[in-house]
Amino acid sequence: MSDWIYPNFDYRPERPLFLCVLSNTDTGKIPGLSAAGSSPDLTDYTPGADAELVELNKIVTIPEIPNSPEGATTPAAVTRAALTLAKIPSLFVTSGLRQKPVVPYVDMNGSAGRDIRFETAVPNATDIIDRATLLGRKLATLSDCIFIGESIAGGTTTAMAVMQALGYPGTVSSSLHKNPLELKQEIIDQAMIRCGAHFGSMKSDPLGAITELGDPMIPCALGLMKGLEGAKVVLSGGTQMAAVLCAAHALGIEGDVSIATTKYVMEDGSASFRSIVESLGRKWYMVDPGLERSGIPALQCYANGSAKEGVGAGGSILAASLRGVTQQQIVEESDKVLMTAELPKPK
Amino acid sequence: MSDWIYPNFDYRPERPLFLCVLSNTDTGKIPGLSAAGSSPDLTDYTPGADAELVELNKIVTIPEIPNSPEGATTPAAVTRAALTLAKIPSLFVTSGLRQKPVVPYVDMNGSAGRDIRFETAVPNATDIIDRATLLGRKLATLSDCIFIGESIAGGTTTAMAVMQALGYPGTVSSSLHKNPLELKQEIIDQAMIRCGAHFGSMKSDPLGAITELGDPMIPCALGLMKGLEGAKVVLSGGTQMAAVLCAAHALGIEGDVSIATTKYVMEDGSASFRSIVESLGRKWYMVDPGLERSGIPALQCYANGSAKEGVGAGGSILAASLRGVTQQQIVEESDKVLMTAELPKPK
Repeated sequence: MSDWIYPNFDYRPERPLFLCVLSNTDTGKIPGLSAAGSSPDLTDYTPGADAELVELNKIVTIPEIPNSPEGATTPAAVTRAALTLAKIPSLFVTSGLRQKPVVPYVDMNGSAGRDIRFETAVPNATDIIDRATLLGRKLATLSDCIFIGESIAGGTTTAMAVMQALGYPGTVSSSLHKNPLELKQEIIDQAMIRCGAHFGSMKSDPLGAITELGDPMIPCALGLMKGLEGAKVVLSGGTQMAAVLCAAHALGIEGDVSIATTKYVMEDGSASFRSIVESLGRKWYMVDPGLERSGIPALQCYANGSAKEGVGAGGSILAASLRGVTQQQIVEESDKVLMTAELPKPK
Repeated sequence: MSDWIYPNFDYRPERPLFLCVLSNTDTGKIPGLSAAGSSPDLTDYTPGADAELVELNKIVTIPEIPNSPEGATTPAAVTRAALTLAKIPSLFVTSGLRQKPVVPYVDMNGSAGRDIRFETAVPNATDIIDRATLLGRKLATLSDCIFIGESIAGGTTTAMAVMQALGYPGTVSSSLHKNPLELKQEIIDQAMIRCGAHFGSMKSDPLGAITELGDPMIPCALGLMKGLEGAKVVLSGGTQMAAVLCAAHALGIEGDVSIATTKYVMEDGSASFRSIVESLGRKWYMVDPGLERSGIPALQCYANGSAKEGVGAGGSILAASLRGVTQQQIVEESDKVLMTAELPKPK
């Protein structure tokens, strides 16, 4: 299918594994910032609910499926569709997650990220990197190709803060149709003043940038990459994962690492996904989930720029396509997931 | 070497994985019952400390290495030696563990097991089985041969209780030189009266037996086995793992499952490891760690019947031997682990 794009991914994984990092950040709770959850307070539960939907096609720990204020449903539905069709195993990794899901997860401990305007964001970033490195090393002996996604509401702001501290001028995408970039920049400016940083000032102190301005997903993804050197790694996400790539570059983490995302992130004129990734000399892959053909409005709206990506949706579609799954199958299965998902009755 | 016995293990794993289930049970805190930790209160920390020693060669969460009242040190040292020499990855799975280690672990949630004399032991056993099954299914796609060990202080008593409720007349081994079998039977009798059970009365209700009389390790190991059907599974432990086999038989869990343990368990005249396993038609493998040749008294005493097994030591030695590691190397490396392990300064 001509609109089903995954250029030049010439490797066919034998034992692919889909990892997804689940984290919270209080920065993401600033009103108006994130679409991942219908209200800021529910965002503590969003990552766990995503994991439950992917693993069980059911949501247990909150009474509703994560929806954005714009009505887009969580990309976890698409991720589940892709992984189920391709029979690819998933493993969730919690790093600073407050509300744990009822599915198996590997816990990196760590506390939820703090509001970067007022506090050091991830005081235990080094510990998280170390633990995730240990986990990555194990997984490298078991899988030849690892996809790493994320679910962290409000993570694009902390991603942009880290990039700016490291001297990358890019802007991040948004799960909202209209990217609240001005609000993000205000928050970042305030955080920079708090910790005495400015654009590029932490170029030679990436750990400091993550600790002061990041979120717990970033050190976890970095540690996994570090431990997985030797295996093929595909970061699965948009500008948040691009920020992880920037930090990896600054930390000297090498390896066969590329990044896959959805067409909806690539088409986001407000974000600079492609230029960031290319400036780092890394390969990117774009997939078109084809959700304009979905029968469900909460997925159709992706094609208009709501939600766009998350829970590793782009990477999971790429992984599935390498096993022969078609775009049509992804769309149909995503619809089926949402029509059959078991949700708790609202109280 | 003639004393290095692993009869007929004719499979050479390509991607072996060592799992170890970490649990607590309040039954194990009854004084005089367990050697896993120098005092009953410290046994909440023993499994996590074992995991830290295996992964990091250092113990972080308690101020001392787990030692038995008889002076035997934890078999985790031997497990670390075997896995390190053979470069086999380990993954710890927590199921009802109160004190979490600082290494990566997959959490099955669940509460610590209660004292079977007074309370239903594992009210959430079914949930644990379901989650562990999910995890097992994932791991079956990544590894062709999975070794499953355990660390749960006081687990032999709950193992024996489950076996008796299912109608198996065997007795369990002990981490103490002198097996306190009378005390164990007293506890079991009291627990049986509490829940209206007697020998064999729960034969057709294995879930009930585990729930009322077991510990959180048992449903976790069972769920893993269930999810791992299709891969080769080697339960790594003594009579506790034999009890898991009994419960699996009662639950109809099939698969290519055998059991490996140390010579010290096989030589325990008070326990009926071999007869239990053979009555179930399962294969057993015995390894001789050769610890009489250790230069360290806390390991030498294994050869006289202290500690004997645990943290999957027997299975990890078998796994290592399949990669060409010798008994001599295991002994030397175990000594090295104990001489170099980094322990916190006692407060």
